[in-house]
Amino acid sequence: MTLPENISEKLHDSFAKQSMMTTFGAQIDEIAAGLVTLRAPILEGCKQQHGFAHAALTFGLGDSAAGYSALSVIPLEAEVLTSEMKIHLLAPAQGDHLEAVGKVIKPGRRLVIVQAEVFAISGDARTQVALMTGTMVPVLPK
Amino acid sequence: MTLPENISEKLHDSFAKQSMMTTFGAQIDEIAAGLVTLRAPILEGCKQQHGFAHAALTFGLGDSAAGYSALSVIPLEAEVLTSEMKIHLLAPAQGDHLEAVGKVIKPGRRLVIVQAEVFAISGDARTQVALMTGTMVPVLPK
Amino acid sequence: MTLPENISEKLHDSFAKQSMMTTFGAQIDEIAAGLVTLRAPILEGCKQQHGFAHAALTFGLGDSAAGYSALSVIPLEAEVLTSEMKIHLLAPAQGDHLEAVGKVIKPGRRLVIVQAEVFAISGDARTQVALMTGTMVPVLPK
Amino acid sequence: MTLPENISEKLHDSFAKQSMMTTFGAQIDEIAAGLVTLRAPILEGCKQQHGFAHAALTFGLGDSAAGYSALSVIPLEAEVLTSEMKIHLLAPAQGDHLEAVGKVIKPGRRLVIVQAEVFAISGDARTQVALMTGTMVPVLPK
Repeated sequence: MTLPENISEKLHDSFAKQSMMTTFGAQIDEIAAGLVTLRAPILEGCKQQHGFAHAALTFGLGDSAAGYSALSVIPLEAEVLTSEMKIHLLAPAQGDHLEAVGKVIKPGRRLVIVQAEVFAISGDARTQVALMTGTMVPVLPK
Repeated sequence: MTLPENISEKLHDSFAKQSMMTTFGAQIDEIAAGLVTLRAPILEGCKQQHGFAHAALTFGLGDSAAGYSALSVIPLEAEVLTSEMKIHLLAPAQGDHLEAVGKVIKPGRRLVIVQAEVFAISGDARTQVALMTGTMVPVLPK
Repeated sequence: MTLPENISEKLHDSFAKQSMMTTFGAQIDEIAAGLVTLRAPILEGCKQQHGFAHAALTFGLGDSAAGYSALSVIPLEAEVLTSEMKIHLLAPAQGDHLEAVGKVIKPGRRLVIVQAEVFAISGDARTQVALMTGTMVPVLPK
Repeated sequence: MTLPENISEKLHDSFAKQSMMTTFGAQIDEIAAGLVTLRAPILEGCKQQHGFAHAALTFGLGDSAAGYSALSVIPLEAEVLTSEMKIHLLAPAQGDHLEAVGKVIKPGRRLVIVQAEVFAISGDARTQVALMTGTMVPVLPK
């Protein structure tokens, strides 16, 4: 399925307005219909007490990837809000950067069910550090 | 129940080592046995696309408050890791700062079940913006 | 807040149509606005391998109590569906019967966020065996 | 990976002791290392108000499949308990029977992270009706 050019623009515009993504040093890696990949370095200011990526970074990246995957399958004028999200932290988020792959499990007019997998990349090694499932709510502008 | 002085020290030491908490401008407000309150301003660099607090801030603060509430009820030499956490986002996180109240639902040697409520404070108004439940794993030093 | 008589009727009608509730021997204990209590004996046919109540019974009772609490705060003509539910099992469900207290955390036109607590009753003892949070979706008849 | 014969025996023994599985008419379809499939008809006594399978059946089958997948990867003398489980209900559970595929996401000595997918089978059609993720706790006999 080809993705309309204006959907890509919409995601990049929304992403640029999230100052937290700038603080995280995050960027959009790939956008497809129902599948969005984000990436962020593990910055000095985003760590927990053992020097691994903080769960707030892992969660924030995964939640955004999942949200943008939902955004890619709803009407162009709508936005999405996260209603709920569960995260399983599977391994210490150790390495150079994190990669979050968000995808749509079940699209819908009222709710979009999403999943995200987050990986820590250290040189050639890619370790899954989180599995997330959640509920996105499409919101039309008033 | 009075909290031993060294538990308070342990929490403050651990908190100070989390660079993400410094980036968030977060601080410890209150520590009691099984109940920890954290607070953070909604900084310019921690927002989503509408200017509200980003879910990564809300999650990170609630997860840490919940984790520290678990830390307050386990042996002094042990640490805790978040195994899983679910967050319901109940309202836009709009205001001056966020307050996260973490508490222990069920203590245990192998697992500690925790809850966190996050509030947005705007002048005199205090609105609940998130409800979280999760699983913390006590880890003894090797 | 007084509950209109026809809401109580609506809940009892819906409950009577759920054959699973009959199989469980469940009944409605109390209906208030945003708060519904169900109860069921721990029948011989509803146990797990140690003779405690099976998680399917605990979940089913809590999910229904939560769903009916949502049903009590939405328009009379609407129904609700569970979209997602998380359950923490806190203790073995041992005793004479289970009691599930469902309540609305945040009402809404599109989503109702709910909570349920399930207790095992054994003589005079009442032990919390589960904590649940979830998302109910109001559905209007076509 | 070949599964030792005595693991299969252990699962069948445990399954036979769960009276709820008998009430559901459930059976074990397949056992592999870290992957267990269960199946149950949608009996007259296990329905919700629209005649679809009740969420308690869907949950109970998925939870058991996930639990047995964990049981297949832990020491033979240990059992597992569900600590927490989240279920997304994706579609009405309509058809002849349900099939639940449980699998291990991350094995561990203290915790086993699991997933289950539940499908409704109606003639040749197989529709996913639920996605679950959860935490199993291995318990050694005292």
